[in-house]
Amino acid sequence: MPAYATNMRLKFPILALILEIITIILFAVFVDYDDGKGHGHDSHSNETHHEEKPMDLYPMFQDVHVMIFIGFGFLMTFLKRYGFSSVGINLLLAAFGLQWGLLMQGVWHLVDGKIKINIFKIINADFSTATVLISFGAVLGKTSPVQLLIMTILEITIFSINEHLVATVLEANDVGASMIIHAYGAYFGLAVARVLYRPGLRNGHENEGSVYHSDLFAMIGTVFLWMFWPSFNSAIADPGLTQLTAVINTYLSLAACVLSAYAISSLVEHKGKLDMVHIQNATLAGGVAVGTCADMNIGPFGAMLIGLVAGIISTLGFKFLSPILASSVGIQDTCGVHNLHGMPGILGGLAGIVAVSLGKKEGGDPVMQAAALASSLGFALVGGAVTGFIMKLPFWGQPPDQNCYDDSLYWEVPEEEDENEESLAHADHSKNKAEV
Amino acid sequence: MPAYATNMRLKFPILALILEIITIILFAVFVDYDDGKGHGHDSHSNETHHEEKPMDLYPMFQDVHVMIFIGFGFLMTFLKRYGFSSVGINLLLAAFGLQWGLLMQGVWHLVDGKIKINIFKIINADFSTATVLISFGAVLGKTSPVQLLIMTILEITIFSINEHLVATVLEANDVGASMIIHAYGAYFGLAVARVLYRPGLRNGHENEGSVYHSDLFAMIGTVFLWMFWPSFNSAIADPGLTQLTAVINTYLSLAACVLSAYAISSLVEHKGKLDMVHIQNATLAGGVAVGTCADMNIGPFGAMLIGLVAGIISTLGFKFLSPILASSVGIQDTCGVHNLHGMPGILGGLAGIVAVSLGKKEGGDPVMQAAALASSLGFALVGGAVTGFIMKLPFWGQPPDQNCYDDSLYWEVPEEEDENEESLAHADHSKNKAEV
Amino acid sequence: MPAYATNMRLKFPILALILEIITIILFAVFVDYDDGKGHGHDSHSNETHHEEKPMDLYPMFQDVHVMIFIGFGFLMTFLKRYGFSSVGINLLLAAFGLQWGLLMQGVWHLVDGKIKINIFKIINADFSTATVLISFGAVLGKTSPVQLLIMTILEITIFSINEHLVATVLEANDVGASMIIHAYGAYFGLAVARVLYRPGLRNGHENEGSVYHSDLFAMIGTVFLWMFWPSFNSAIADPGLTQLTAVINTYLSLAACVLSAYAISSLVEHKGKLDMVHIQNATLAGGVAVGTCADMNIGPFGAMLIGLVAGIISTLGFKFLSPILASSVGIQDTCGVHNLHGMPGILGGLAGIVAVSLGKKEGGDPVMQAAALASSLGFALVGGAVTGFIMKLPFWGQPPDQNCYDDSLYWEVPEEEDENEESLAHADHSKNKAEV
Repeated sequence: MPAYATNMRLKFPILALILEIITIILFAVFVDYDDGKGHGHDSHSNETHHEEKPMDLYPMFQDVHVMIFIGFGFLMTFLKRYGFSSVGINLLLAAFGLQWGLLMQGVWHLVDGKIKINIFKIINADFSTATVLISFGAVLGKTSPVQLLIMTILEITIFSINEHLVATVLEANDVGASMIIHAYGAYFGLAVARVLYRPGLRNGHENEGSVYHSDLFAMIGTVFLWMFWPSFNSAIADPGLTQLTAVINTYLSLAACVLSAYAISSLVEHKGKLDMVHIQNATLAGGVAVGTCADMNIGPFGAMLIGLVAGIISTLGFKFLSPILASSVGIQDTCGVHNLHGMPGILGGLAGIVAVSLGKKEGGDPVMQAAALASSLGFALVGGAVTGFIMKLPFWGQPPDQNCYDDSLYWEVPEEEDENEESLAHADHSKNKAEV
Repeated sequence: MPAYATNMRLKFPILALILEIITIILFAVFVDYDDGKGHGHDSHSNETHHEEKPMDLYPMFQDVHVMIFIGFGFLMTFLKRYGFSSVGINLLLAAFGLQWGLLMQGVWHLVDGKIKINIFKIINADFSTATVLISFGAVLGKTSPVQLLIMTILEITIFSINEHLVATVLEANDVGASMIIHAYGAYFGLAVARVLYRPGLRNGHENEGSVYHSDLFAMIGTVFLWMFWPSFNSAIADPGLTQLTAVINTYLSLAACVLSAYAISSLVEHKGKLDMVHIQNATLAGGVAVGTCADMNIGPFGAMLIGLVAGIISTLGFKFLSPILASSVGIQDTCGVHNLHGMPGILGGLAGIVAVSLGKKEGGDPVMQAAALASSLGFALVGGAVTGFIMKLPFWGQPPDQNCYDDSLYWEVPEEEDENEESLAHADHSKNKAEV
Repeated sequence: MPAYATNMRLKFPILALILEIITIILFAVFVDYDDGKGHGHDSHSNETHHEEKPMDLYPMFQDVHVMIFIGFGFLMTFLKRYGFSSVGINLLLAAFGLQWGLLMQGVWHLVDGKIKINIFKIINADFSTATVLISFGAVLGKTSPVQLLIMTILEITIFSINEHLVATVLEANDVGASMIIHAYGAYFGLAVARVLYRPGLRNGHENEGSVYHSDLFAMIGTVFLWMFWPSFNSAIADPGLTQLTAVINTYLSLAACVLSAYAISSLVEHKGKLDMVHIQNATLAGGVAVGTCADMNIGPFGAMLIGLVAGIISTLGFKFLSPILASSVGIQDTCGVHNLHGMPGILGGLAGIVAVSLGKKEGGDPVMQAAALASSLGFALVGGAVTGFIMKLPFWGQPPDQNCYDDSLYWEVPEEEDENEESLAHADHSKNKAEV
């Protein structure tokens, strides 16, 4: 398979090191510690009466950090032979992405020509990586680390433009980022997946499935995401009661979403059994969908209604829509990000328009909310398509069809649990002993 | 097996959706955000000099949240074929239970006819679910999701009555809830298990055991429970030094408990080997047993003594008492909750009586402590028995004996690791190889 | 193998119980709760204008706690048959170590003849256990629980002397403990490993390797360590902006380190593949290496440079140096702690000398920094060698070569996944059924 050139030996290390060195140079020129003399963020500037200490947001940052690295990383370990890549490449992309995000988001908020880092900024940097990790889910198993690093650079750069537009120009509300992270990340990834469409996988792939324990690893990701989502949706909310509102709305939306996801999963599956794919993903849709409205006065029951609907839509999407997208639209969405982030993200954007129309957010403007949703989708689809074409260039080491969903192309994988199993594995060991 | 009607297709989805919709309606009528104008909780009302901000307790809430969803969920994944149910049904019950708990606990503390949600309330809601998850451990593998949802409703409702009686009427101390959560949850579950006794499982069941990796998954639960237990026992303590005392006592009790649990496990096992069942569970008994006294001035060494004794009792219980309960009393306690929550919970209640008698808690009354313990046990046994009889009705989809401890009755389970196992798996693999 | 006397039945329980009882007696005499009237720590004494509440550091403590118990515990589960010991003995040693650390560190800071426990003290107690867990990594799989308890007592005692010397006498800076924890723990463990050198394992051991899922369990440890390292390095920094600096430097160093570790791993491995051993460990070297300088004004790019170099050194160490240490120096370093903690720890110490020389820390003295590094290495090598000889005494139950890296020597291990596999396992089950 020389045409694929999946050997990463030179191209990956060189790209990774060059990117890191460029980043360090940019940090040397543009980045400094926050000295506490400026304001953390525009939205806080009216709150000067509230004395904030530098570390106040730190516990929330760590919750978000866990979502990014454990949550997203382990959620994708459900594939039977792709766990190393899921959690490992997730770490790589997020570690680079947060540095790049600090730069890309920071240029819009320079103080004395410098990006001043504080906890607020590193939360936002984590957020920017979330878009990449969502898109990663759409192309999981079908892309090389080099392709994914390229996606990271482009997706975060475009994200930062859209975020600036939505937050500063349109002044739209999206505290939990249903639109600018979830919908954006999902449709960006789906556009990439469409461009990278593989007819050879039309009939599935033997490795595109789970084993018992890989599904349990994935539940580690699910449960950490589920638990800490209130932190995600409230981390950058105004301190005090507004932040509390964001926590409570997210907590309740997620709780209601669990019930509807379980109910619909049982309803549509064979003999009323629950499907792990639904449980791992659709239970989280309530966190996505309540994002835009999280800090609004929608009432606890309003948050629960959003979660209830999100759980239903998401589960039905996995069952009925994903197969259609794959067969008829040419979008092979490995993790079903359309169901977890795409549709619930749009639902969140729409809920935000309605809530603002009903006056649930002081100073909100439903037209601007709609514009924010349209902008996020537009940047995602166009940016994702362009990024997809760049990723499709033939020298980034994209895996051939038969090696998709298989760690062993890019990782040293222990022999033992491989196909040859016990007998061969033992033979192998004696060989190792002889060699050492 | 038509008599069992384990197909969940209609009964489970309908029950789950109806419960959620009723809950949302009740929330629409009765629940609102806390506006910060009332007091979080009666026990805090004397502390008005201490300015609390709405989010002060949030990090502790998240620790408790992790205990509920990761801790309890993964602790039960030790069974070789029941991991999906352990972590998955744990999520379902807790997600519904916290909503129901907010209502049931909230009705005793209405402000202007409303339940005002704040962080303190959602911590207590998480607590109320803990009782259900403890009882779940007693009947793990032998009940259907429908039965367990019914248990959730009843157990939390009865818990809220007992909690109100203990905290408000008796004014007993139980900051870490040795009595009202651990003893209550354990004996409630044991009463249910007694009613649901299965003679057919008298000689064990081939799936009632662990495999190597399922024991490691369970250790994720154990370690998170162990680490965050200081938050559980101090979350609702009075702020400041009292809360610090609760943290330190719990931290030390747990540390001492580890040593005694390991020592006794090695002492009673074949060739001095350690038994994972003991390590996974008895190391936590110190957290349970120090609960009632956690915020009392019992001295660091007092906390350690409690932990030491708890570790011994719990390990001996697993080794010697559980088999007797199963064979002679008809209580098949899958996770050994009697050893982890039952006896240590009673020990905690007794320690509380002694500590209050010795004047370790200002204003404490040993008679009221004893009454609180008796009340918790009484409500547990009677409530559990009644609940058990309701759960025993023949139309809730209870699994037949031969399908106990087996996820595949209620879940779509990936084929690969199924019973056909190696031989078939090998056949499969060679086939795959041929195809590629 | 009677010469080995690996049966723990009496020696382990008796040692564990006696240690715990002695510890409790010492606590009864010397330890009390902090009443808030003293100062938490000398380094804070100049900060009296900053009002600290007793629980301010609690979230950071819990992050450190997670690193100790989940991070270190699961990081070592990569071995295919040694997961019970990795996470289980880690729990045992840390639970005892934190009690012992409270005593050993506390005697240098008595107030009215008492050790007054607060959050600051329990963070430091957790820190003291980290040295033991690092050394545990060097001898993993080749030592009995009794040997390891002995190592715990000696290593923490010596650590406390060196820490006092470095912090109070030399007044050196080491906020993230590159020198006093990481370098100390690594070289202590390597000295022990040298003394316990096993010629019989010169050619490796069939169990000294991973399987697919054990590598994923290890990644749980890696990722939690990676995420919470900013808390480790900043927990005892001066509150406010200094603490923020420590967080940001650590966060950025770790991010840069990921890129260089991945790049070098791919560069040196067969066909450019990534090696899980490097990813699990070398990605963390940035946290170690930035420790000493974490609270200094080294600039964000300075922190990233340190991380970049650490990732390179650590990965190269795993690839090229570890085999030489094993074959030529007689140091069989199971987890490669020399690459993760040893060299990066020294790098951190050297970076600290340079940073202090450049005036990046007010009042810092580069000579004292160098003395601190030398002291830490000296105490480690001498202390480790002495400890090693004590551990080598023939009655502590050290495992014979052929039983190394095998849980089943000290643990009851479920049959099923053993070598005999299915057929035997099934036979076993029926036997159990008959017996019960």
